[in-house]
Amino acid sequence: MNLKVRLPVFVLVMEVVMIALYAVFVTYDDNANAKMQNNETNPMDNSVYRDYPFFADVQVMIFIGFGCLLAFFRYYGFSGMVFNFLTATFTIQWAILIQGFFQFYHDGKIYLGVVNLVNAEFACAVVLISFGAVLGKTGPVQLLVLALLEVPIFSVTEWVVLKYIRINDAGGSILIHLFACYFGLGVTFVLYRPGLSKGHAKEITSYHSDILSVMGTLFLWVFWPSFNSALTLKGDDQHRAILHTFIGLCSSTITAFALSAVFNKRGKLTMADIQNVTLAGGVTVGASVDMMISPVAAYCLGIMGCTACFFGYRYLSPFLARHMKIQDQCGIHNLHGLTGLISSTAGICAILLATEETYGPSMYQIFAHRAPPEGDPRLLELQMQIPGLKPGLGRSAQEQALYQLAAIFSTIAAATVGGLITGFVMKLPFMASPSDGDCFDDELFFDMPSDFNMIPFFKLLSQSAVFQIFHA
Amino acid sequence: MNLKVRLPVFVLVMEVVMIALYAVFVTYDDNANAKMQNNETNPMDNSVYRDYPFFADVQVMIFIGFGCLLAFFRYYGFSGMVFNFLTATFTIQWAILIQGFFQFYHDGKIYLGVVNLVNAEFACAVVLISFGAVLGKTGPVQLLVLALLEVPIFSVTEWVVLKYIRINDAGGSILIHLFACYFGLGVTFVLYRPGLSKGHAKEITSYHSDILSVMGTLFLWVFWPSFNSALTLKGDDQHRAILHTFIGLCSSTITAFALSAVFNKRGKLTMADIQNVTLAGGVTVGASVDMMISPVAAYCLGIMGCTACFFGYRYLSPFLARHMKIQDQCGIHNLHGLTGLISSTAGICAILLATEETYGPSMYQIFAHRAPPEGDPRLLELQMQIPGLKPGLGRSAQEQALYQLAAIFSTIAAATVGGLITGFVMKLPFMASPSDGDCFDDELFFDMPSDFNMIPFFKLLSQSAVFQIFHA
Amino acid sequence: MNLKVRLPVFVLVMEVVMIALYAVFVTYDDNANAKMQNNETNPMDNSVYRDYPFFADVQVMIFIGFGCLLAFFRYYGFSGMVFNFLTATFTIQWAILIQGFFQFYHDGKIYLGVVNLVNAEFACAVVLISFGAVLGKTGPVQLLVLALLEVPIFSVTEWVVLKYIRINDAGGSILIHLFACYFGLGVTFVLYRPGLSKGHAKEITSYHSDILSVMGTLFLWVFWPSFNSALTLKGDDQHRAILHTFIGLCSSTITAFALSAVFNKRGKLTMADIQNVTLAGGVTVGASVDMMISPVAAYCLGIMGCTACFFGYRYLSPFLARHMKIQDQCGIHNLHGLTGLISSTAGICAILLATEETYGPSMYQIFAHRAPPEGDPRLLELQMQIPGLKPGLGRSAQEQALYQLAAIFSTIAAATVGGLITGFVMKLPFMASPSDGDCFDDELFFDMPSDFNMIPFFKLLSQSAVFQIFHA
Repeated sequence: MNLKVRLPVFVLVMEVVMIALYAVFVTYDDNANAKMQNNETNPMDNSVYRDYPFFADVQVMIFIGFGCLLAFFRYYGFSGMVFNFLTATFTIQWAILIQGFFQFYHDGKIYLGVVNLVNAEFACAVVLISFGAVLGKTGPVQLLVLALLEVPIFSVTEWVVLKYIRINDAGGSILIHLFACYFGLGVTFVLYRPGLSKGHAKEITSYHSDILSVMGTLFLWVFWPSFNSALTLKGDDQHRAILHTFIGLCSSTITAFALSAVFNKRGKLTMADIQNVTLAGGVTVGASVDMMISPVAAYCLGIMGCTACFFGYRYLSPFLARHMKIQDQCGIHNLHGLTGLISSTAGICAILLATEETYGPSMYQIFAHRAPPEGDPRLLELQMQIPGLKPGLGRSAQEQALYQLAAIFSTIAAATVGGLITGFVMKLPFMASPSDGDCFDDELFFDMPSDFNMIPFFKLLSQSAVFQIFHA
Repeated sequence: MNLKVRLPVFVLVMEVVMIALYAVFVTYDDNANAKMQNNETNPMDNSVYRDYPFFADVQVMIFIGFGCLLAFFRYYGFSGMVFNFLTATFTIQWAILIQGFFQFYHDGKIYLGVVNLVNAEFACAVVLISFGAVLGKTGPVQLLVLALLEVPIFSVTEWVVLKYIRINDAGGSILIHLFACYFGLGVTFVLYRPGLSKGHAKEITSYHSDILSVMGTLFLWVFWPSFNSALTLKGDDQHRAILHTFIGLCSSTITAFALSAVFNKRGKLTMADIQNVTLAGGVTVGASVDMMISPVAAYCLGIMGCTACFFGYRYLSPFLARHMKIQDQCGIHNLHGLTGLISSTAGICAILLATEETYGPSMYQIFAHRAPPEGDPRLLELQMQIPGLKPGLGRSAQEQALYQLAAIFSTIAAATVGGLITGFVMKLPFMASPSDGDCFDDELFFDMPSDFNMIPFFKLLSQSAVFQIFHA
Repeated sequence: MNLKVRLPVFVLVMEVVMIALYAVFVTYDDNANAKMQNNETNPMDNSVYRDYPFFADVQVMIFIGFGCLLAFFRYYGFSGMVFNFLTATFTIQWAILIQGFFQFYHDGKIYLGVVNLVNAEFACAVVLISFGAVLGKTGPVQLLVLALLEVPIFSVTEWVVLKYIRINDAGGSILIHLFACYFGLGVTFVLYRPGLSKGHAKEITSYHSDILSVMGTLFLWVFWPSFNSALTLKGDDQHRAILHTFIGLCSSTITAFALSAVFNKRGKLTMADIQNVTLAGGVTVGASVDMMISPVAAYCLGIMGCTACFFGYRYLSPFLARHMKIQDQCGIHNLHGLTGLISSTAGICAILLATEETYGPSMYQIFAHRAPPEGDPRLLELQMQIPGLKPGLGRSAQEQALYQLAAIFSTIAAATVGGLITGFVMKLPFMASPSDGDCFDDELFFDMPSDFNMIPFFKLLSQSAVFQIFHA
């Protein structure tokens, strides 16, 4: 009922809008334009070969990694995986336009290449992280509205932070993880369901859904180095980003296992920890991922992020749900918020500690805003050493650190306000939010195979007398 | 019983044949031959680095994407996934030989490099698509015979079309999708089973098989840009192919969700639509995937292909099954036939609309047959602008369009006839086709784990009085 | 209980040790060090672009391929997949250090780049293969101890063989597969459990665990060419390695299907064969994977390896378990030992048959130890043809073959002794080995979802009178 009219109407309207906008504004960038190729163009130097491998890895993360990870509920596997698919595809085509206007627009056109797709996938990651906060409690139309509103709010924030505040954030700890987290918390705050404050009978996993979810975790784990390094400078910067992410994930993972065992009553492992907490290291290294922080620092960041994330799940999430009306379904505040804050802080420290002694002249490439401004004689000197160096803003390390701080606070503020507004829109009556009883249940949205009905039967049966007899 | 003799004999004979042919004919191409390397060879310029990344992506599609997608039946998951594995490995080694004779043969040898493997994987995609028409109703020996015959028929068709008719078909809409579709329909027409015209009790899915199948869809979705761009020209052509495929898939996916909801009685989503119809955009952009069609055209093609595919599943497939004895199990006519026809038509339009104004001189690289022929003064002029330009056939846009049309009809004709013949061979008594009752059942071919027997029990139980009591 | 103290203590101690060692010893290699970049560095020439694609593929194999493959037990899916994850992450961070000291250490520092990670993943593969011998019968602390001890023993062996014996073994048949196999057999010999000599009630699969495991096989299959070629020379050598691995896997797969059917009582396929024996070809081509052995030789190696592996599972594994107290849970002796021996033998043959006629001057790059030593006039002559050729040891083919033989025997000896010692350590009382009854059961280590308890109930039910009535 819910979907029969609303979903098609939404899609139809958006498709008309997008066809119009794509037709008027979107054209090929120079690397994708046949006309821009001439006898001096080497096809193998096309930007597609630098961007596409990373794009493909991020695709796997978005569609398969997130998709499986979000399918962890026993009765909500279809929805978790399939709404992720729907939301991601909608977000990406929308983000190509919206980010296009902010980042790839000149002379009246949005210039499109694979690099735009990489950016759009990042916007998509933002939406999917926010989605995690309301998983199981929102219908597909609500999710599309979430994407519809979050993408422009994110794009404006991204544009202001990158263009005016100008920060270092290669792995997106601030712009992706903090933004997505606080936006999602804003949404879920508005969508607070007092009826679910004591949980829901279907908020459980099954043997197979847990395994599926771990597979999602593994896909995210494996390709996270590509995510964190997709938009760094090429060369040694990207190389370090890969190393740091990998090391951070490794230390984070073994820490998660240890914490899971030691804080479990019976000393057993909890699958939810393995599905989520292991990944904390990937976020935590983000803000400083391309800097010369040294491998041991990445190792320690992995441990710190993992620890914060673990205790967040254990103590902070229940607290937020009970006392602040923030029902954070997947615990995004732990995996993206707390780790994002640690990461941002680490990024500031790394900026304050950066010296030419460690980085050599390429310091002014990594910290582009610290490069001397146009006309500064020091710039010419540096350009002798690094021919392509662009003029910067001549910021000191301390100044850059303050700008980072400003970016953190503005991002959180923009995300929270944006999330609250979006939450109100999603709560409007015609959004057809599922009733409390229908939450966490595929049956509301899907034609189910016949074995789905049997699952509750087994549960009843297992509690019945017959079962007790057999089981005894 | 079925497999104990026939499968091993088939494999043994084919292995002897292949060892003989590989020994006599197959050698390394220049890029894989140690002897051809000298002091002017730069190892990093080896063709392997251009071809292998795309090959690896296509591998994932063939083995994991198709494998999971075809495992959607509740009692036929082993067979779907494992026969896909068997058929694919057999097809590839066979296609290396057969395509080798047509495309990579000179001086008495087939020259082998990774590029041959990419071509062989495409032949493999053809066989697996055709397989979709008879899924559940054929044994492994029949499938191997299908591959044995389809590969040569495909290779001849491919060779005639590429060498004599000479067309543009970068994404393989004509040669891969249309060929595979009509071949498969030919086969299933001959293998028509009147006993199954009202369906089969085991032709159902389960909660887990549906999720598995969606995973297959996601793997195909994610790597489809690599599939469509694997054999384009390098540089901007490949760049555009990636962009178009991605955009086409995005618009196709949201359209599939909308149509699925609006045409469902209760406004719910149907998993079969999400597993199949979402992918229609990838096929539909195929024939014009490397051309300057503009991003919005790719967007519209995705919507059109998806719509045709959706209504094909809804109306055309039942019609074909009821009135034309074509039982198209996976609906390949919708996902590959209708979309392939739209794509081919779009390709012809794109050819007719192509101008030097849009493409610049590189138009004569993309539309190689429109380049002036050897000796034409215009050729020399163009070679000043594009040094490597090869002489073409001097075709006009209209001429090329007619050749495309010819290619479409000859491909469909060759595929249909080939499919019918192959169907007759597969129907021969010693092929041991499964009886109607044994269709869609893993038990015929596999030693099953003990929980498999329990599934029908649950079904019985769920219809029984005990269940009704508990469930009430 | 088991994990509550021991696992956290182990992890904590190791993290302290690793932080100390990383802090003191690990720094960036030149390709990852900002300071080493100057105006002559081309970022796109950074080694990360040569190593990372292969690294990413191997990552998928280690975490997802192995993870799914090892999840084949019905009641041990969590453990198989998750302990693989834990063991792999621990092994890699540990191997970065230990291998670092042997292979990447100079001037008091370990120099870290993505190439170290590739090597560490190989050490990881070694540990995970050995793990296969004791799957289901060891707890996570025991597995971490296994990794803790195996990595240094492996690294020493690798260092001695590569630095002093100096062999050709691009695909790691000797150093990876033989070492891992005999180490694992040594461990399982010591951990012999007479109580399990007649099997265990939970040593069974389920419909879903079998499918999951096949997915693991497919991921390993698809990316195996990257595994075998990750550390070859770049260019034609890597190209051949990819071709040979792919061809070997293809012939191996169809042979596995044929053998599975013909030796099954009822002519049906056995999933365990499809999960394991199909992969034998990947190991068997290993030692000669980069040589000019000709495609048909790779094809035949695939068939030979597969056949040996198949009969190993059928006859040798039961023999070893019954008469030699070697309970090889996953049959690693068949998939890695027998195939490794065939591969090593084939490598020796290929070395003996190698001539300059076939390889051209680049023979002295592939067989680096056969290059003339420093000062030999023949060296200068060759360096005219191949500018970068490094002086070798001037070995003849026969000499090199003997060194290969020496490497095989020393590797097996070192692995066996190392495995026995490690087994004794793992057997120490405080390692808390699971009791015989608790083997193959996730419940010992995990908080289980509620449907897990129901599975045995179904089993009981299915054997009960009620079931018989319904099923009849």
